[in-house]
Amino acid sequence: MNPVELIKLKRNGSALTKDQIKFIIEGYLDGRVTDYQMSAFLMAVYFMNMNEEETFFLTEIMLESGKILDLSHIKKPKVDKHSTGGVGDKTSIILAPLVASCGIAVPMISGRGLGHTGGTLDKLESIPGFNVNFPVDDFKRILEKTGLVMVGQTAELAPADKKIYALRDVTATVECIPLITSSIMSKKLAEGAEALVFDVKIGVGSNLPDKEESIELAKKLISTSRKFGKKAIAVLSDMEQPLGMKIGNWLEIEECIEVMNGKMIPDLFKLNNVLAGAMIYAGGMAKNIEEGEKIALQKLQDKSAYNKFLEIVEIQNGDTGYVKDWADLKRPAFSKTVTASEDGFISEMHASDFGFAAIELGCGRKKVDDEIDYLAGIILHTKVGNEVKKGDVICELFSGSSEKLEVSEKRMKDAVKITGSKPADKPLIIDILE
Amino acid sequence: MNPVELIKLKRNGSALTKDQIKFIIEGYLDGRVTDYQMSAFLMAVYFMNMNEEETFFLTEIMLESGKILDLSHIKKPKVDKHSTGGVGDKTSIILAPLVASCGIAVPMISGRGLGHTGGTLDKLESIPGFNVNFPVDDFKRILEKTGLVMVGQTAELAPADKKIYALRDVTATVECIPLITSSIMSKKLAEGAEALVFDVKIGVGSNLPDKEESIELAKKLISTSRKFGKKAIAVLSDMEQPLGMKIGNWLEIEECIEVMNGKMIPDLFKLNNVLAGAMIYAGGMAKNIEEGEKIALQKLQDKSAYNKFLEIVEIQNGDTGYVKDWADLKRPAFSKTVTASEDGFISEMHASDFGFAAIELGCGRKKVDDEIDYLAGIILHTKVGNEVKKGDVICELFSGSSEKLEVSEKRMKDAVKITGSKPADKPLIIDILE
Repeated sequence: MNPVELIKLKRNGSALTKDQIKFIIEGYLDGRVTDYQMSAFLMAVYFMNMNEEETFFLTEIMLESGKILDLSHIKKPKVDKHSTGGVGDKTSIILAPLVASCGIAVPMISGRGLGHTGGTLDKLESIPGFNVNFPVDDFKRILEKTGLVMVGQTAELAPADKKIYALRDVTATVECIPLITSSIMSKKLAEGAEALVFDVKIGVGSNLPDKEESIELAKKLISTSRKFGKKAIAVLSDMEQPLGMKIGNWLEIEECIEVMNGKMIPDLFKLNNVLAGAMIYAGGMAKNIEEGEKIALQKLQDKSAYNKFLEIVEIQNGDTGYVKDWADLKRPAFSKTVTASEDGFISEMHASDFGFAAIELGCGRKKVDDEIDYLAGIILHTKVGNEVKKGDVICELFSGSSEKLEVSEKRMKDAVKITGSKPADKPLIIDILE
Repeated sequence: MNPVELIKLKRNGSALTKDQIKFIIEGYLDGRVTDYQMSAFLMAVYFMNMNEEETFFLTEIMLESGKILDLSHIKKPKVDKHSTGGVGDKTSIILAPLVASCGIAVPMISGRGLGHTGGTLDKLESIPGFNVNFPVDDFKRILEKTGLVMVGQTAELAPADKKIYALRDVTATVECIPLITSSIMSKKLAEGAEALVFDVKIGVGSNLPDKEESIELAKKLISTSRKFGKKAIAVLSDMEQPLGMKIGNWLEIEECIEVMNGKMIPDLFKLNNVLAGAMIYAGGMAKNIEEGEKIALQKLQDKSAYNKFLEIVEIQNGDTGYVKDWADLKRPAFSKTVTASEDGFISEMHASDFGFAAIELGCGRKKVDDEIDYLAGIILHTKVGNEVKKGDVICELFSGSSEKLEVSEKRMKDAVKITGSKPADKPLIIDILE
């Protein structure tokens, strides 16, 4: 088979056979298909889509590109959560230790920043020493010992996805249902969870801004999970503005620590609690999501979640001193404030503009090998719906580079809109599908 | 600017500004935009197109990425021809020396194989020693001395096009009007010709199989030429079946030598003569194409074209002994015949199937750095419309690798169709636009 002809077939709208998809994916892993051919192929898929069967084959081939974990020796229910990615979306950091402290095993394999959205791994790595790369045996050992594990994809699990995910991030081929589905599912099927909760973001800050497409994705994730014998719940949540008050790597860890120590950040708190409730219910430890939420709330309030978080930081070689010292704020050399240009109500804080501005600050990558500035980021001082006076601080930008700060500030130009009257409230939790 | 955002803008259907196109093109040359980002961008352009203005900017930026030649010291009319590329399309090899022998200067910058079609440079390089890489000063010197020069793009002329052209070839982004237009025009505008003749191929073997699109391309080439002050003629010619009887690199040089020595290959002869007539007319040395054709015919018959060809081979360091020895056939180690499966008339010899089969034999590249087998190729024993008996040889495949021969033979499986009744004749020259 010739990669050019396969790209052309997809470009011209043909459905590919299992063998053809296999050639592309395996060829990409062994070098017969180059990076630049793969990115052209991915863009062709973006435009011409893949049908149910192609998506299933793609998932299966990506899954089978590596090991599939057997966690049957762990007797607890095994549930994982996956978010389709948003700006300021840091729920995993709270959720995994929280649900683990409720007696559920959470074998969590996360990703890096994708498009304008951050990644759990990059955030965790802002904790000095925190290791997200463990071989499969250590993964099992940590999970068995602590009830959770938070790692990146090892070369052993779904290696095809790992390589393709990095490429999509830098080639504007993120927002594509069959690619998103196969990426999520190949990882989740490999890691051995029995049940899955999906947080499917809807809005300009998600990786799939069209609402109908997000609902389609949620349904596809549930149907694909079922096809592989897994229970699944999808929570559709708003991503028009950033989630919580902090964007960045360490800044988001810091905000999670604050929440786990009792600080009330309403949207972050609410979404986290619903997802935790869904995971506890999916794991069979509550009779519905509401009951799960009650269990979770108690474990957050009694600091079980925070203690479990410190436990996982320690076992994954993170500097617990650095974490415990969170109240002594860690900020980079340069900062700048963005202020309100007039009196009124905040009607929009455009999440993807914030996301791209954060990348400009150094929070994410423009190319695969770009380095991350872990302390860079944005702190919001207000949210959509709030009243502001001209000159009030809307947010602060932080970066280790004054040059980056300038670029980011320009990028923020149209991110915030102010209107004369208070905008209507929008629900954070849009729907829950089972 | 962030390459990912620019890819996304084009992907989402926006028209790009001159500055944005400049960033992409200049960034690709200096490394700020990677190969894999460029190929994703090109695929996005394939699907979302570029408007007149974007195409003009793209052409201008690619042109200005290098030097623009000043040939005003050469007093002859300066005319070049460009073919949009077909299978077995070797007319340049005859045409350049032929028209030069009629007193027109031909500053010809050609390309390499693109998609399933061969490239003039690869063909010329099948002559041992033939150098297609000359700095600009030598280009001018050779042109002034012999009346023609046949080279590749130097790093000095339209370097952006050179790099993008190679990438398009291996990422299935060849068939795209704004990319084709800017690629052709940036080269042709840089090389200093005063008038241009375009051979726009129509049919399955062209790089743009849709007839309407080919006509659109022809019109766009003429209008862009005029915008830059050049006279232009477009000949629309049939490319349903391969042109002539030989496909490959040396095989096509051999066929050109045969024609320049009096052999009659009807389609190749006819197309060559019309294009020569158009070039002579465009150069102001005939009052119409027909008169130009008469002048050209005489120079072909009296061997002026062949002698001029030997002159250019010599001055460009090619082995004239190897060329003069053409009647002693040069064939690679392995060959195989394809025979008629039944009695009837040849109704189809699918040009792009022949083109891809030739690539499998080693005539072209699947990846940028693949090596070419110069003697590999296909010799046709018949053409569409001819009667055959079961078992008659339809064509012979040649390769230096028996393995490649097998793969190519499979690729040919559906390339030839036989019907019970003689198919209707199709015109070779479909239209001529000025």
